[in-house]
Amino acid sequence: MTGTTYYEVNRERVIAAAAELFARNGYHGTGMAELGRAVELGRGALYRYIGSKEAVLYAISKDQVDKMNRYAEEVLDRGLEPREVLREMARGLLRNIADHRAEWAVFFREYNALTGERRDEVIAARERYEGYWRQALDRGVREGTLRPTPRLLVKGILGMLNYTYLWFTPDGELTPEELADLFLDALIDGIHS
Amino acid sequence: MTGTTYYEVNRERVIAAAAELFARNGYHGTGMAELGRAVELGRGALYRYIGSKEAVLYAISKDQVDKMNRYAEEVLDRGLEPREVLREMARGLLRNIADHRAEWAVFFREYNALTGERRDEVIAARERYEGYWRQALDRGVREGTLRPTPRLLVKGILGMLNYTYLWFTPDGELTPEELADLFLDALIDGIHS
Repeated sequence: MTGTTYYEVNRERVIAAAAELFARNGYHGTGMAELGRAVELGRGALYRYIGSKEAVLYAISKDQVDKMNRYAEEVLDRGLEPREVLREMARGLLRNIADHRAEWAVFFREYNALTGERRDEVIAARERYEGYWRQALDRGVREGTLRPTPRLLVKGILGMLNYTYLWFTPDGELTPEELADLFLDALIDGIHS
Repeated sequence: MTGTTYYEVNRERVIAAAAELFARNGYHGTGMAELGRAVELGRGALYRYIGSKEAVLYAISKDQVDKMNRYAEEVLDRGLEPREVLREMARGLLRNIADHRAEWAVFFREYNALTGERRDEVIAARERYEGYWRQALDRGVREGTLRPTPRLLVKGILGMLNYTYLWFTPDGELTPEELADLFLDALIDGIHS
């Protein structure tokens, strides 16, 4: 999501700064006053852009999951071979994690701090994303290129991919896309000889 | 590690309580005074058992990784078929994560807060653990039951397994061991039809 109005640009700047601070010092360890100083906004202005600390955590988490959902929908619509759908979804996720490590770190570490509707919405968005992975797997089974696998495997595949936020460095030996292919090759073909 | 002396029992009680508090409120969001109240120890007594907040975070993280290293060494020594070594290591890890969800949550979320030697030691212990997985994979390649795979695959396998701390509930449909088998079956045999 790239903002265009002055309000949107400022809001995104606040959310990006908050993601960095939360990733470094923890959600509970970061105060609104500290965030205000980091983005050089007073209390009133900060409030206009984001409302509350929990609202920032919600925005950090929800924005990325929403992006991944839109990407999955788009990939599923392309009419690709199901194994290629899985690869594309993995590439998109690892690219996004590499580009937004702070946001993903905050999401995985801190989403438990969300409450009420915000929490429900983020959980629903994550479940929708898992559902798209299951759709791709199911399509492969129907078309005869994938074997039926237990539903929980999707959580394993996402673990494989999500966990990269902890260790992947974009300036390393592989691009996010190459790493996604490495994982998906192992998973699709198996590691038996 | 099960303590036997009064000192050890109390120390473990403090570490377990700290893991729960850090998991709930974050490492940066938990004060020593709060921990003291939770375990009903005054400042001096608390200091005797754990020294500093960072020392507790170190103990929470290091204890579990050390346990997994000892378990991997033991499994590698059993002379099992390499694919069975992988399965056993996966079962041991998921069982431990299911039994110590708070500790693993704190480890994955907060180990970045460790500094100096403590940080180096935890990172070295994790790397040793990854090395054991690579040993098992390499042994399978030598014995002809596994195909050669890129070194980074170990991080993918561990992601698949580690990520369960976020969602696995021990009272769910599967035991940790069954879940480990589900993931390892997919990985070893592949999901192609």
